[in-house]
Amino acid sequence: MQISAYAKDCPSRQILDRIGDTWSVLIVVMLADGPHRYTELARRIQGVSPKMLTQTLRGLERDGLIERTVYAVVPPRVDYALTELGRSLHGLVEALEKWAEAHIDEVLAARQAYSAK
Amino acid sequence: MQISAYAKDCPSRQILDRIGDTWSVLIVVMLADGPHRYTELARRIQGVSPKMLTQTLRGLERDGLIERTVYAVVPPRVDYALTELGRSLHGLVEALEKWAEAHIDEVLAARQAYSAK
Repeated sequence: MQISAYAKDCPSRQILDRIGDTWSVLIVVMLADGPHRYTELARRIQGVSPKMLTQTLRGLERDGLIERTVYAVVPPRVDYALTELGRSLHGLVEALEKWAEAHIDEVLAARQAYSAK
Repeated sequence: MQISAYAKDCPSRQILDRIGDTWSVLIVVMLADGPHRYTELARRIQGVSPKMLTQTLRGLERDGLIERTVYAVVPPRVDYALTELGRSLHGLVEALEKWAEAHIDEVLAARQAYSAK
């Protein structure tokens, strides 16, 4: 099979779904600073539901981008950290986040022009 | 307001949703080669429904990333092309697509290890 995200059944299509996802981007960029706990991620990534955060973390772990470490303390402590694979993605998704933040004015102006059509 | 995609109400959050979306990525990368017609996009981007393709193209046009040109011929011909803003995004989203295609083996191996846990 040809490797191409344009092909419906190529695994890269699913991987692209995972890595371009907004929650994934925000988690990967945040974990580039070092490991964080679930509660820290939930506080920093405003508006993410517990269900969505848990689901995204599980998907990133399943795909080998982050790892979960459970510490046997009371109450139990769970840390999330980037794997080597996750670190290789960091620069790319950070660039995407920065682009979004840098081009707000242009996008909002385009939306206004579109509505006025 | 602080500009940050981590803030729920910052417009960059919505922009990140748009630019990281798989269909958006595939459209922007394809249009970097030059303008394409709707039917060419639909054929190349396998598995995208007409509804989803139309909706994604409209969103990208609204946000100023692509432009739509209608030619007064019979049957009418509609071309989509990147704007300057869209071109500034191209390298970033192409890197994302290439990452997905380059790391299939590692992600699939991670999934297998995760299932075996």
